[in-house]
Amino acid sequence: MNDTFLKACRGEDVPYTPVWLMRQAGRYMPEYREVRGTVDFLTLCKTPELAAKVSFQPVDILGVDAAILFSDILIPVEGMGMKIEFSEKHGPVLPEPVRNRALMEKLTVPVPEDELSFVLETIKILRAGLKVPLIGFSGAPFTLATYMIEGGSSKNFLNTKRMMYQNHGVFGGLMEKITDTVVAYLRAQIRAGAQAVQLFDTWAGVLGPEDFRAYALPWVKTVIKELKGEGVPIIYFVNGCAGLLKDIRNSGAQVIGIDWRVDIGEAVRKLGKKVSVQGNLDPCALLMPPDAMKERVRDILDKGRAARGHIFNLGHGVLPEIPVDNVKMLVDAVHELSGK
Amino acid sequence: MNDTFLKACRGEDVPYTPVWLMRQAGRYMPEYREVRGTVDFLTLCKTPELAAKVSFQPVDILGVDAAILFSDILIPVEGMGMKIEFSEKHGPVLPEPVRNRALMEKLTVPVPEDELSFVLETIKILRAGLKVPLIGFSGAPFTLATYMIEGGSSKNFLNTKRMMYQNHGVFGGLMEKITDTVVAYLRAQIRAGAQAVQLFDTWAGVLGPEDFRAYALPWVKTVIKELKGEGVPIIYFVNGCAGLLKDIRNSGAQVIGIDWRVDIGEAVRKLGKKVSVQGNLDPCALLMPPDAMKERVRDILDKGRAARGHIFNLGHGVLPEIPVDNVKMLVDAVHELSGK
Repeated sequence: MNDTFLKACRGEDVPYTPVWLMRQAGRYMPEYREVRGTVDFLTLCKTPELAAKVSFQPVDILGVDAAILFSDILIPVEGMGMKIEFSEKHGPVLPEPVRNRALMEKLTVPVPEDELSFVLETIKILRAGLKVPLIGFSGAPFTLATYMIEGGSSKNFLNTKRMMYQNHGVFGGLMEKITDTVVAYLRAQIRAGAQAVQLFDTWAGVLGPEDFRAYALPWVKTVIKELKGEGVPIIYFVNGCAGLLKDIRNSGAQVIGIDWRVDIGEAVRKLGKKVSVQGNLDPCALLMPPDAMKERVRDILDKGRAARGHIFNLGHGVLPEIPVDNVKMLVDAVHELSGK
Repeated sequence: MNDTFLKACRGEDVPYTPVWLMRQAGRYMPEYREVRGTVDFLTLCKTPELAAKVSFQPVDILGVDAAILFSDILIPVEGMGMKIEFSEKHGPVLPEPVRNRALMEKLTVPVPEDELSFVLETIKILRAGLKVPLIGFSGAPFTLATYMIEGGSSKNFLNTKRMMYQNHGVFGGLMEKITDTVVAYLRAQIRAGAQAVQLFDTWAGVLGPEDFRAYALPWVKTVIKELKGEGVPIIYFVNGCAGLLKDIRNSGAQVIGIDWRVDIGEAVRKLGKKVSVQGNLDPCALLMPPDAMKERVRDILDKGRAARGHIFNLGHGVLPEIPVDNVKMLVDAVHELSGK
């Protein structure tokens, strides 16, 4: 068993810097497209054998040091009783967004072992076959709330912020239900076999620091506190984190995932010595000529050494347009340059 | 003449904190919609009497301390010979994006007094009627390049970054032509009467710090250096600036405009004592109940006092959905709470 990733999460000595990539199972990979060609996206998420199959692919093909469950951050939201249409072109669409108390109160907190059992099945298949640790995940409460309130992706998040500012009761009630859902969902993933879990806060970076402290961070802290007893590392990834690092530091997570729009050296200084750091190559840097890309990797590795522990990753997911050979080259470069 | 804004730009003592708002002339205002109802967006930009009319509106209606020329950041790009279709719903579309050397070489550097004379006419009408300073503006080189390369707005800026990384010659040639255009355009605006100019770097925040230093900042520095001799304050606004402040500090601009996703106190500390700071209320905070909004204003004013000079603004443009009364309340609150 390769446990380099888990050791780095805990800040223990590692022989080289472990690497995995957000969205490492995905459209950029021909083997994924082959599976995906036979079923739609949601069926892929909900069919344990297929979801496990595409989760294994990057481990075998790229040689990454951790696997991540193939799923979508909105899967628990569907479990709460919301309709979601997944379109790879337009992103997710939720045709009945939550904009008032009545709709908020109709939402339920799913029992993962019932409504989301396919995820737990996928985890069991993966654990039986993997020789690297398995990461489970969920969207973080604020990010899930934005989809539920906006009805999909958004440019200005005006509906979300309107509810935050004008209707504390409904917003708070929604966040509580989401938080309960995320806690139950991640706890079930851990008990099914996930050896670490990541909270994806894809949209928390649209909040200024004061709003982040008021409307996103408290619920993240609750999730992390509730899961501490499960004994696995929790990674908190915030996209657009540069202005929020001093607050993110207090989330309680053992590992902080950062996007590429901040210098990792500066991030490590702000996050302090009590957490490990995960990141943070620009996903588009995979388009660089090999030598230039390696220089970027070397710089991130050098700066990452100042952290308690460093897990190499991109600053966001692998894009569908990236040649798979470049992704392989990245994983090899991280291993080679960090002493594997 | 109310010169509070210009004094704050230069770091001189002011009796209260001056305020203007990005996109203060715009769709949220009924008087604007009335004018806009009679002509399309591009005709409005290109008809000096109408462009001046909507530029005057927020000065009269809101009582802001500066006017800004009504125009679009892409106007100089059209002057370079690119076709642009403006759609308020989908944003600008450039049907023939620049993706190779031949297309880059076909671009011209416009003579503002010829191709862009309508802008200079607008400035003259405004100066004749204004009792507050007039701000001219242009998109910053990197931001203009993204539109020209992507053909419009973008999610991941993959084409721009591909050109940056893989084709230095074409990217550099494009940036040089854009820079020459911006310098000539802003110089002409200043000579026609603009008393300050703002460079809008709407998309520089999609770059990590290293790419910002390599692919955006050098051309901004050139623009600012070329314009220094004109003797008017230059404001450099970077949207998504939180991770870039240490580099932005070296742009040469007298005023740095910041978005809302960073604490203004932290920004002032990073930017140092040689520049004034402009910003940075979340545009969505205009949806807050009055007392909560005033608390946010007070906090920004308090922290802004640590800067050499502070000009109050939003962290991005006024959104069309914002009630005009809320915008008036904001301007009044800034004045009242800062001692007017």
